[in-house]
Amino acid sequence: MKINSLGYYLPEKIQTSAELASKINKSEDWITSRTGIYERRISDIDVDEMAAIAASKAIGDGLPPDLILNASGVPKQTIPDTSTFIQSKLGYEGIPSFSIHSTCLSFLVALKTASNFIQNSDYKRILIVSSDRGSRGRNFEEPESAALLGDAAAAILLEPSENYENGLMHWNMNTWPKGASFTEVRGGGTHKHPQDTNTTSADNLFSMNGPKIYKMARKYVYDMINQDFKKVGIDKSEIKLVIPHQASGLAVKAYIKYGGFKTEQVIDIISYTGNCVAASIPLALAIAHEQGKIKRGDLIYFIGTGAGLSVASVLIKY
Amino acid sequence: MKINSLGYYLPEKIQTSAELASKINKSEDWITSRTGIYERRISDIDVDEMAAIAASKAIGDGLPPDLILNASGVPKQTIPDTSTFIQSKLGYEGIPSFSIHSTCLSFLVALKTASNFIQNSDYKRILIVSSDRGSRGRNFEEPESAALLGDAAAAILLEPSENYENGLMHWNMNTWPKGASFTEVRGGGTHKHPQDTNTTSADNLFSMNGPKIYKMARKYVYDMINQDFKKVGIDKSEIKLVIPHQASGLAVKAYIKYGGFKTEQVIDIISYTGNCVAASIPLALAIAHEQGKIKRGDLIYFIGTGAGLSVASVLIKY
Repeated sequence: MKINSLGYYLPEKIQTSAELASKINKSEDWITSRTGIYERRISDIDVDEMAAIAASKAIGDGLPPDLILNASGVPKQTIPDTSTFIQSKLGYEGIPSFSIHSTCLSFLVALKTASNFIQNSDYKRILIVSSDRGSRGRNFEEPESAALLGDAAAAILLEPSENYENGLMHWNMNTWPKGASFTEVRGGGTHKHPQDTNTTSADNLFSMNGPKIYKMARKYVYDMINQDFKKVGIDKSEIKLVIPHQASGLAVKAYIKYGGFKTEQVIDIISYTGNCVAASIPLALAIAHEQGKIKRGDLIYFIGTGAGLSVASVLIKY
Repeated sequence: MKINSLGYYLPEKIQTSAELASKINKSEDWITSRTGIYERRISDIDVDEMAAIAASKAIGDGLPPDLILNASGVPKQTIPDTSTFIQSKLGYEGIPSFSIHSTCLSFLVALKTASNFIQNSDYKRILIVSSDRGSRGRNFEEPESAALLGDAAAAILLEPSENYENGLMHWNMNTWPKGASFTEVRGGGTHKHPQDTNTTSADNLFSMNGPKIYKMARKYVYDMINQDFKKVGIDKSEIKLVIPHQASGLAVKAYIKYGGFKTEQVIDIISYTGNCVAASIPLALAIAHEQGKIKRGDLIYFIGTGAGLSVASVLIKY
C-alpha cells in the first residue's frame, strides 16, 4: 500500500497558554515548562465536521473512498460510531464505514488494519480519519491534563502501491492493563453511565497521570524501539522521519534523549498544537508532508503510547 | 483461519416480558407480538467482567491469546477502550488489545479484521469478544426499543487453519448515513456531552425507530444476500446455518420470508435473549455450536444490520 494523499484541519481559534493559565489557576510558565505547549486550537465544530474538512483535503478531486475508517479517541456519540457521521458530512452514501478505537493509537491500528485490507485486495481506496476535540473533555481542576489537550483532525487516503517495495514494513503493539487507570474518561459507557446519580463531573472529563504514564511508558517504548530495529534489521539512522504521538513536550523529546534518534529526525509539533489525542500522529505526518520533509521511498517510523496503557509502532516506506 | 473454540455468558437474572410490561406501560402481549421477545437477561456485572467469563470459556485450558479484539456496541467507558479492561479481568498483561466499533456489526467487522491478521501471519491466536449490557441504556419511555434489549457476552478464538479450504470465504459491508438517526445513543461523546446542560436523559439512552430501519434495511439486506451468493457462486441450500443479527423477531424471520433460507437454516434465539447488540451474532453462533448444529466444513453465513445504517455479511467454512 501507499499513502496517496493527506489532509488536516487545525481550527482557527487559538488558545494560548497565557489565556488558559487563569482558567486552571496556574501561570503561563507553569504550563509551558510542564507541557512544552504554548498554544492549542479550540474547535467550534464537532468531530465529524472537523474530520470531513481534513478528509476533503486528502480526497481532493479524486474518487470517493471505498472504505472509511474512523480512527479517533473519543466519539461524536455512543451510537452509531463516528464513521457514518463523517461519511454524511462528506456527502456520500453507500460506503462501508466503521471505527477503530485504541485512543491515541487509533490511527496506527487503522493504518495496519487498512494495509491488510489492501494487501488482501478487499479495498483499493481507504480513507482513514482521526478527529479529536479534546477541549470538550478538559477538567480545569486537573491543570496538567487540561493544559495538554488541543483539537485537530487529519486524514490519509491509502491505495495499493504499484511498487511492491513501498508500504507497511513492520507493525508492533502491546497493551498493559495495569496502566488503564492512568489515562481515563470514566464516563460515557456502562461503567459510569451519564444517568447514574453517582457519576461525577470528573468522571465525564479527561484525567491523566502524566508522570506515572511517563515512567511506565519509557521502558516499554524503549524496548519496542529496540525490538523493532533488531527485527527489521535496519539502522535508526536510515529512518527519514520519526512521527511520535505528541503526548507531551517531554514525551516527544524522549525519542531523542532515550530513543536514539536525532533531533532532525523527530517531528515535534506539540508546542503549537497540544496533544490532539488520536489526531496527533496523522497531523504530525500531514504537517511534515506539507513542509516538504517526505518523499517517496523515505522510511517513516511511527510510534506512540495510548490509554490502556498501549504502545504501538508502524514502519512504512513512503 | 478457523474458529478454534467459543464461549458465551448469559446472565442468570431473567426479566420476562410480563415483568417488563408494567415498566413501559404496555401489556405482555404488546411486547411479545411486536418484538417476538418473551424474556431477556439482565446483568449485574459490567461488560468487561461479562466478556471475561465468555472469553474464559473460549480459552479454556489453552494458551493466552496473542491479540484481544473487543467488538462490542457500547463501551465500558470512553477511555481507555474496553479491550484493556477485558484483558485485565482475564488476568493477563502484555497482550495487544484494541476495539472495533460498528455497533451490532462489530463482531463481523472484527471477524474479517482478525482473518486478515491471521492470513498475514501477524497473529496466531486472536480472541474476539462482544459484550453488551443494553439494559443499562433502556429508555422506558420508548417502549418498543426498551423491550428489545438484553444483556450477553460471547467470544471466539481464531487460529490459522491447517486446512487451506477452511476460513473466511466472503466479506461484504455497506453503510448509509441517511439511516444514522434511526438507531442512536446521542450522548456519551462530543455531540451531546454528559456535562452539557442541554443533554437530556433521552440523549443518554438507546433510541431506535424499528419500523423505519426495517423498511430501509429490508431492501439493502435482500440486495446484499443476492450479491453475495452470485459472487461466491454457491446455492443458498448449501449453507448449513445462517446466523443473523438478532435485531427483532420480525427481522430474524425476514431471512426466511424474504431472504430465501429455510427455517431450519436460520438460528433464531431472540425470543429468550432479546437483542444483545454486538453480542447477538457470536451468541447465536456459540449457542448453535453448543447444540451440536455445527461441524467442521459447514458453510456458515453471518448477516446483519447495525446502526449507521450498516449492513454486513461474512461467509465462512467452519
